[in-house]
Amino acid sequence: MDSYKGLGMITEVFSEENRDSLHGNIGLGHVRYSAAEKESRQDVQPLVINYIKGTLILANNGNLTNGRELKEELARTGAIFQTEADSEVVAYHIARERLNTRNAEEAVRNAMTKIHGAYSMVIASPRKMIGARDPFGFRPLCIGKRDNTYIFASETCALDAVGAEFVRDVLPGEIVTVTKEGMSSDTTLCGNQIRKCIFEYIYFARPDSYIDGISVYNSRIMAGKILAQMHPAKADIVVGVPDSGNAAAMGYAEETGIPYGTAFVKNGYVGRTFIKPKQSARESSVKIKLNVMKEVIKDKRVIMVDDSIVRGTTSEHIVRMLKSAGAKEVHVRISSPPFLYPCYFGTDVPSCDQLITYNNTIEQICKLIDADSLGFLDGERLHEMIGGDTGYCDACFSGNYPVEPPKEE
Amino acid sequence: MDSYKGLGMITEVFSEENRDSLHGNIGLGHVRYSAAEKESRQDVQPLVINYIKGTLILANNGNLTNGRELKEELARTGAIFQTEADSEVVAYHIARERLNTRNAEEAVRNAMTKIHGAYSMVIASPRKMIGARDPFGFRPLCIGKRDNTYIFASETCALDAVGAEFVRDVLPGEIVTVTKEGMSSDTTLCGNQIRKCIFEYIYFARPDSYIDGISVYNSRIMAGKILAQMHPAKADIVVGVPDSGNAAAMGYAEETGIPYGTAFVKNGYVGRTFIKPKQSARESSVKIKLNVMKEVIKDKRVIMVDDSIVRGTTSEHIVRMLKSAGAKEVHVRISSPPFLYPCYFGTDVPSCDQLITYNNTIEQICKLIDADSLGFLDGERLHEMIGGDTGYCDACFSGNYPVEPPKEE
Amino acid sequence: MDSYKGLGMITEVFSEENRDSLHGNIGLGHVRYSAAEKESRQDVQPLVINYIKGTLILANNGNLTNGRELKEELARTGAIFQTEADSEVVAYHIARERLNTRNAEEAVRNAMTKIHGAYSMVIASPRKMIGARDPFGFRPLCIGKRDNTYIFASETCALDAVGAEFVRDVLPGEIVTVTKEGMSSDTTLCGNQIRKCIFEYIYFARPDSYIDGISVYNSRIMAGKILAQMHPAKADIVVGVPDSGNAAAMGYAEETGIPYGTAFVKNGYVGRTFIKPKQSARESSVKIKLNVMKEVIKDKRVIMVDDSIVRGTTSEHIVRMLKSAGAKEVHVRISSPPFLYPCYFGTDVPSCDQLITYNNTIEQICKLIDADSLGFLDGERLHEMIGGDTGYCDACFSGNYPVEPPKEE
Amino acid sequence: MDSYKGLGMITEVFSEENRDSLHGNIGLGHVRYSAAEKESRQDVQPLVINYIKGTLILANNGNLTNGRELKEELARTGAIFQTEADSEVVAYHIARERLNTRNAEEAVRNAMTKIHGAYSMVIASPRKMIGARDPFGFRPLCIGKRDNTYIFASETCALDAVGAEFVRDVLPGEIVTVTKEGMSSDTTLCGNQIRKCIFEYIYFARPDSYIDGISVYNSRIMAGKILAQMHPAKADIVVGVPDSGNAAAMGYAEETGIPYGTAFVKNGYVGRTFIKPKQSARESSVKIKLNVMKEVIKDKRVIMVDDSIVRGTTSEHIVRMLKSAGAKEVHVRISSPPFLYPCYFGTDVPSCDQLITYNNTIEQICKLIDADSLGFLDGERLHEMIGGDTGYCDACFSGNYPVEPPKEE
Repeated sequence: MDSYKGLGMITEVFSEENRDSLHGNIGLGHVRYSAAEKESRQDVQPLVINYIKGTLILANNGNLTNGRELKEELARTGAIFQTEADSEVVAYHIARERLNTRNAEEAVRNAMTKIHGAYSMVIASPRKMIGARDPFGFRPLCIGKRDNTYIFASETCALDAVGAEFVRDVLPGEIVTVTKEGMSSDTTLCGNQIRKCIFEYIYFARPDSYIDGISVYNSRIMAGKILAQMHPAKADIVVGVPDSGNAAAMGYAEETGIPYGTAFVKNGYVGRTFIKPKQSARESSVKIKLNVMKEVIKDKRVIMVDDSIVRGTTSEHIVRMLKSAGAKEVHVRISSPPFLYPCYFGTDVPSCDQLITYNNTIEQICKLIDADSLGFLDGERLHEMIGGDTGYCDACFSGNYPVEPPKEE
Repeated sequence: MDSYKGLGMITEVFSEENRDSLHGNIGLGHVRYSAAEKESRQDVQPLVINYIKGTLILANNGNLTNGRELKEELARTGAIFQTEADSEVVAYHIARERLNTRNAEEAVRNAMTKIHGAYSMVIASPRKMIGARDPFGFRPLCIGKRDNTYIFASETCALDAVGAEFVRDVLPGEIVTVTKEGMSSDTTLCGNQIRKCIFEYIYFARPDSYIDGISVYNSRIMAGKILAQMHPAKADIVVGVPDSGNAAAMGYAEETGIPYGTAFVKNGYVGRTFIKPKQSARESSVKIKLNVMKEVIKDKRVIMVDDSIVRGTTSEHIVRMLKSAGAKEVHVRISSPPFLYPCYFGTDVPSCDQLITYNNTIEQICKLIDADSLGFLDGERLHEMIGGDTGYCDACFSGNYPVEPPKEE
Repeated sequence: MDSYKGLGMITEVFSEENRDSLHGNIGLGHVRYSAAEKESRQDVQPLVINYIKGTLILANNGNLTNGRELKEELARTGAIFQTEADSEVVAYHIARERLNTRNAEEAVRNAMTKIHGAYSMVIASPRKMIGARDPFGFRPLCIGKRDNTYIFASETCALDAVGAEFVRDVLPGEIVTVTKEGMSSDTTLCGNQIRKCIFEYIYFARPDSYIDGISVYNSRIMAGKILAQMHPAKADIVVGVPDSGNAAAMGYAEETGIPYGTAFVKNGYVGRTFIKPKQSARESSVKIKLNVMKEVIKDKRVIMVDDSIVRGTTSEHIVRMLKSAGAKEVHVRISSPPFLYPCYFGTDVPSCDQLITYNNTIEQICKLIDADSLGFLDGERLHEMIGGDTGYCDACFSGNYPVEPPKEE
Repeated sequence: MDSYKGLGMITEVFSEENRDSLHGNIGLGHVRYSAAEKESRQDVQPLVINYIKGTLILANNGNLTNGRELKEELARTGAIFQTEADSEVVAYHIARERLNTRNAEEAVRNAMTKIHGAYSMVIASPRKMIGARDPFGFRPLCIGKRDNTYIFASETCALDAVGAEFVRDVLPGEIVTVTKEGMSSDTTLCGNQIRKCIFEYIYFARPDSYIDGISVYNSRIMAGKILAQMHPAKADIVVGVPDSGNAAAMGYAEETGIPYGTAFVKNGYVGRTFIKPKQSARESSVKIKLNVMKEVIKDKRVIMVDDSIVRGTTSEHIVRMLKSAGAKEVHVRISSPPFLYPCYFGTDVPSCDQLITYNNTIEQICKLIDADSLGFLDGERLHEMIGGDTGYCDACFSGNYPVEPPKEE
């Protein structure tokens, strides 16, 4: 099996030559923005390993809650680790289970009873591809098809991009196996306790994606409407902070009848900075590299909708930009509840002491970011944005963890 | 004088090291998307030359109409050329005029009487910086200031990006000189026949820029309104083709009362392809790499606003995407008149035989792109988008050339 | 622990920036020309692993004879492998032994009782550095010192390069541990059966190195003298094929009294090709990129000394070059016996069917390479080149393997 | 005409892709080590220009003595310069002369009457290739042929490298034109005053080259013999400082009967540093990255032959290395006279105040470099190294300039 990996944007890592060196009828790619501050090439997914039955390739989205314990346990039997990635821990478990199972999917199933937390993973061997999702279904995973080729992807927009048809979502706890003979499913581990990450809808996913049957775009429109009901304001225009605040702003505008407007222009060529590992770099580069269209804002009372507030520095910066551009008032509305608790399932939220919402009252935050008023989506009505579905995880807002959080080091 | 140039995106060409190697208190940079199919490193601007008085650095935006004649004339006196750029022809003329003038700005003025066509250029010598704009004012050029530093830029959004204040536009025909002592102006060549490129407002410029006192955003809103008045349609939603079609779509929505919506999601990481030299590559990469949000479009009659139609392939592609996403009808509205004539002033329009508008009637185009109706902004009302100002060039639509077009080779 | 690795020459892989990112008071580097045809970045040494006791870094020179068996054995306990390198197998054994030992050097010693074959390895942990050599001593390993810093290296010329003093060789079977407190030694595994690779003296090592107390240069001079005694020829000049044939040519000249000359000029800038993985590329690039000095050769009977013949194509090429340059006769002398058997201890000899010496008689080879006569160093007198020492391995010439060769796959 | 240029080693600049992008039946390449401290990509040869008659490509080896005057003269007519290279001045003259001549070779001839100093240049147009050498013949230029292709090269070793036959040298003052019809010659400017650079034989050229019919190798052997006659010493071994000192050392050894030996091993992978622009970097990298073979030197009286002494730091370093390696005495012999005067014809000799030979007596130098004795080749017998030919330039040793040196700035 051939592999090629690197740090950076896809267009930086993959030259035509590298791309052409990859052959075969099963392929597995992985891309992510790095949550950790320091990332090494060694940690880049997918992980390619050799084990008793040959070669296995793994890519994972999520975060194990017992990763550290499992790693220590493995180390106590003499295991060696070459990466910091959960995938290596998963690979070890599959390799060990494979000794006593008839096939790879059984080994995956057995391994899944040992690993806890959030994971949506795709595993390729020379003759099959396996997609598996943790029983809570924290992270999305869907199946597409183009001609005779099955495709696993986190988001449906990836299927659109390659011209594939959406088939269905992988169920929480399901193991889907694709071979030359077609697709089969093992639902042994599927249970009733579903905990889809609500923040996928709020921020991570692209609005043109559907996750577990729900349109991300619609969920944001709905969040904006609820927000408008709970935190109305007298204003002349509603604007969204690009890109993830736009749909909620539209919902807010629709609900209130206040016109929706586009206030910001993004500098199109800073894209590469998005994938930089440091939170601070990401904030300043992605959101702050905006320019305000004065014509849209001048002499107006503005409702500015964003998806979340983390440290508050970005919000403060944008409010000030709007006021410099002539806004008479800036009312900030956030289409999610305040961050108050750490996420152990893969969302990159800084520690509590860095969260402006953890350390301040709404009034204090409002002053700190220089807004004329501030309103958050109430946690009580959060489920309405996904049509009343209550099978979601909102632990970062509520502290209501579906599984025991990992012990602190 | 130090210089560093390269082909590619700024972030590809300039490493931290290269950037740090550039010192001094006068700086001149240039970036453009390449109109020519084949571009060599030699042709990258700014041009750095040595001449009788030392070093001169030139960057130019535009296109000389008598560039070929001047080059032949120079060659007949034994001149040698190392680039294909107009800047080299300009540099030669400045160098020759400099032999009989007291200073560089006089040489620039004399050279400007010989070069014809569109140019907005900035020229730096070790002790001064000169900004000059052709007497028709085809291409924009503005002046900004930050602390004690003067800045020349094509668009005002560049001033915003570096935190500079807008001072004023350079007048058509004006030569502005900046030295340690401050700014001075020579308006000897300023005349009455102004011909600002209207296509800057329609397509090139960023909506947050102001050109010659007119907001690009407002001009597009206005174009959308006029378009709505001339080519109304019964529909449920108005959507713009990103990014340059969005403001016109908003204007259209505002005028008609039909709701404005965001139908497209752009893949954020294809930015680098924008600067690729081949028209075909640019079309397919930039516009086609869109995805439709089905939720916005499904079962709706859609008005799709774009800034222009060139070959028609992109429009056809997007109309089909909308219909696949469930649009019941797609009415295409173009916020500019049909392209019918070549531009000799720097706009990269393909030759007539490649223009769908040159070879087909409106009805034929409508069929070719699979639209339910098609309407272009009428040339007669074009000036209304810039507030009634009639000092603009619309030759690519009207064939009304302000100067004699260059003889065909 | 920080690490940085790459494929290519050191000067290609290590920029100033990469180099400066490596900090600390223990460092471990590795460079080699790749024996395998396909090398991936994953396989580049040193190997950096985490295990029960923290971090361990390994670099190895040699080849395990039971590597495949050990790997299969490990796989049968659920181990996973991310490289093709022996070092990973060694690391696993150290990690497992470390569970039941008091320190790393004990774990290394226990692991050494399980791994067979040729290895000279250096292992670094955050607080110590361990150098270990297999009990046969196939591959060299020496100790140097500069100020208070101990250095392990394969060859003494590396010590010269950094201005370090040679301390002594690591003994076959010895484990040398360096900590802040100084150097200590464990000779438990040292035995009497020494099998130093004779080909290190003949070809691999630099002539300015000393291996186990013997000057590489002197050993080659001696090989040339023995060769002259066994295969004299009437000639006007003795020339060596650069670089490894030069010293033997000098010895031949000295013994016979025939003048030594320099016949070849190397193209100095093909160095990077040396590290290319394919044998064929190496042959053609390194040896064939020579030019003959006609003045030295013209009208002369030439004795051309080389260290070995593999496929014979290079020798044929060089003989023809000499004859084209005017040599009247070319007598080829090889300062080692014919290759007849595979090496399992790290020397990159092609398989028997590609060896000209395996498939042909001396007379046939002589004709094939167009030489006027051909003589090899006799295996019986091989030990004389290293001063009569009989503790060496010459299995590639004699088939006399000191350990059972690995079973064929 | 396609061109590709860059800074660095050929293998760094030319990827397979770049190489394959160059098509046609006339090709012109240029490589040199940079004499100037700061080199820009703009200055890399060959120069590609457009002029009245189309495209012209120039590559030059040498240095014009009136380059600065010609440049000023051109600037006074309004010329602009984009490089620091003499080639641009030459190109201008050819372009101007071409206005009044029937063909390019006539223009080259007329230009040659205006440009003074050292130049061996090759000029390509789409249909012909012209090789021209200044009337003094300072720099070498030869003609080769392979099948139906003619090749111009500075040194004959380049012809060997591509398997071409040597045809003849271009005569001093000759203009050789190659077209599809074959080769023709214009000897109008050939005169009697020949001044071949003697330092080409001493240092620059590869020993396997022939310049103007004389073997570089033989010339160095001869220099060594003369040196031995003039500065004998009692010693046990003669060694050369690689690479340019080796042949002279052989000549010294041959003349005296003292055995020749190889004392130094070069680190083969520092090649790229050779082309670095700074003299200091070149000295330390190229010559100092040597290791001494102690076995060769230990307890011996050594004669160390080098081609020249510039600042003396390298010599001092090497003498010390030899003594550290156990040499009892080190007698330094230099196969050229002391540098005393600047070269205006392309040899990169530092200014006088940096020359150890300019500022010290032989005795002082001998002490400074820690040698036991020191001898230079006497200028009076210099011509003997090239067989008595007196048509050479030795101005850097004698101050005997064949043309007026350029005025100091």
